[in-house]
Amino acid sequence: MSNLPARVTINEEGPREGFQIEPGPIPTARKIELIDALSRTGLRTIQVGSFVNPKRVPGWADVDAVVEGFRRDPGIRYTAIWLNAQGFERALRHRDRLTLTGLALSAASETFLVKNQNKTLADNVEAQRAQLRLYRDHGLESVTAQVMAAFGCNYEGDVPVRAVVEQAAILLDLAGECGFRPRTLSLADTMGWATPLGIRRVVGAVCERWPDLPLTLHLHDTRGLGLANAFAGLEMGVAEFDASVAGLGGCPFAGHTGAAGNVCTDDLVFLCDELGIETGIDLEALIAASRLAEAIVGHPLPGAVRRGRSLASIRHARAGLTAA
Amino acid sequence: MSNLPARVTINEEGPREGFQIEPGPIPTARKIELIDALSRTGLRTIQVGSFVNPKRVPGWADVDAVVEGFRRDPGIRYTAIWLNAQGFERALRHRDRLTLTGLALSAASETFLVKNQNKTLADNVEAQRAQLRLYRDHGLESVTAQVMAAFGCNYEGDVPVRAVVEQAAILLDLAGECGFRPRTLSLADTMGWATPLGIRRVVGAVCERWPDLPLTLHLHDTRGLGLANAFAGLEMGVAEFDASVAGLGGCPFAGHTGAAGNVCTDDLVFLCDELGIETGIDLEALIAASRLAEAIVGHPLPGAVRRGRSLASIRHARAGLTAA
Repeated sequence: MSNLPARVTINEEGPREGFQIEPGPIPTARKIELIDALSRTGLRTIQVGSFVNPKRVPGWADVDAVVEGFRRDPGIRYTAIWLNAQGFERALRHRDRLTLTGLALSAASETFLVKNQNKTLADNVEAQRAQLRLYRDHGLESVTAQVMAAFGCNYEGDVPVRAVVEQAAILLDLAGECGFRPRTLSLADTMGWATPLGIRRVVGAVCERWPDLPLTLHLHDTRGLGLANAFAGLEMGVAEFDASVAGLGGCPFAGHTGAAGNVCTDDLVFLCDELGIETGIDLEALIAASRLAEAIVGHPLPGAVRRGRSLASIRHARAGLTAA
Repeated sequence: MSNLPARVTINEEGPREGFQIEPGPIPTARKIELIDALSRTGLRTIQVGSFVNPKRVPGWADVDAVVEGFRRDPGIRYTAIWLNAQGFERALRHRDRLTLTGLALSAASETFLVKNQNKTLADNVEAQRAQLRLYRDHGLESVTAQVMAAFGCNYEGDVPVRAVVEQAAILLDLAGECGFRPRTLSLADTMGWATPLGIRRVVGAVCERWPDLPLTLHLHDTRGLGLANAFAGLEMGVAEFDASVAGLGGCPFAGHTGAAGNVCTDDLVFLCDELGIETGIDLEALIAASRLAEAIVGHPLPGAVRRGRSLASIRHARAGLTAA
């Protein structure tokens, strides 16, 4: 069963997820400071902001200034999200600085889709088709297909694996119709329902149906199983994960007050390091960025290795002692 | 590889671990309040205090009052620890209220043993023999053998699996010499070095050597892998775990400032519930005790399900909606 990948890609979503949910206004300069710190860690994908309605998400009213302000490393894909055509138009203005990847989105729970996106599954097919056509017309290079609530839903409870496969099939078909082959299929544990056994079940069914399709896991650490679930995914061969530095963030629309952020990037990189899986990320630099994130938001954030120190740093200090 | 047990025993160590490390003086009455709350959760083993030198661990200067003060449920094993013969003598005075279980202790890292217990491995053999004889002479019913630093050590780094098996063999021999068959062999990740692969390696080697010996995992969540490690242990068939409500506690002698507490009981019970493993514990009652623990210490504690809500409670609320 163990099929650990040799190398894992981590998409850093901390700035976007975190600054969306923090109650206090965070100065634009500090958002940029965190993005610049993250650019020095070896991360190759950093989601820097969200083109959303500033009335609904005031934390991203300054997204244009943030996107124009960070120090751009040409080796890094800086990404952003938007929720509708208007947001996409705004993102297009920054095409010289951002890698625009279209998101084709559905959910394994129709009730969640209605509550979160105000769309039935049928409405959503039309909406996603319209979005994908827009992406095609604007010459976007790639899209990601994502099935939300893929492991359970606060409104519908446990969701059948079949519903995940069905929605993935619909998104892949829609993408194909518009000339896209999605770069990855992302399975999102939007409300923190996954367990290691659930990960194996869903990832197993998806791999069986599409053996050559790269998968991404988007995991939330709502109930403490984030890293156990990530490990289960790694053992199924999943080689791409979304994560948030210091566990920043959380979804304000997930229907419960305890919505936790993505799995913590620092802890995920630590796990990969200890398993001998390459990430390309310098954990000590990442821990420094994680401390900065905590300083910026001004309250304790999740994530353990930032406090506990990496084992590599302890081994290194010991080697120094031995050599001395 | 998956050999999930049908039923798991969780030894609650929160009161002892937590009140040992908290900086502020915690009133005796509040310690008792937490123990009484834990007695109402279905837990069957609760470690209520530590008979240690009050100059070294002022948090337990009131251990006698705590032990005499809680409301004793005859179905629960209330336990305590001590570090030497003097502490044991003090514990003996409460034999009507406590289940005294002797601990035969060693470590897979001699340097840790020297720093933590001020003993070499050779000294330790004599010390453990003397302790075990004392336990025999006082008619203790059972002992637990524990190998500390079984997955790595801040002083010695990674430790060979062989060292764990060797120390376990020494403790089992010493126990046998004194007429004890240890009720369990506890493998302690004292400094938070374990990974799921390390758990499989060490537990696998120990099971191969002693196929019929019950094992306990004592895991610390120092670097975020606590539950991933617990899941790996469960899949190896381990059916007993030490844990702390709300992740209370931590070892003040582990040689780094980031020492985190045991794996959080609430999150571990949640994991077991979702895997269909029986614990006998009512998660909602435990979450209430976890909230109380946080209120008592007056600062945020680890543990996620306390904030995220159990999935059972969400399923239950949905079932009510459906029925209505």
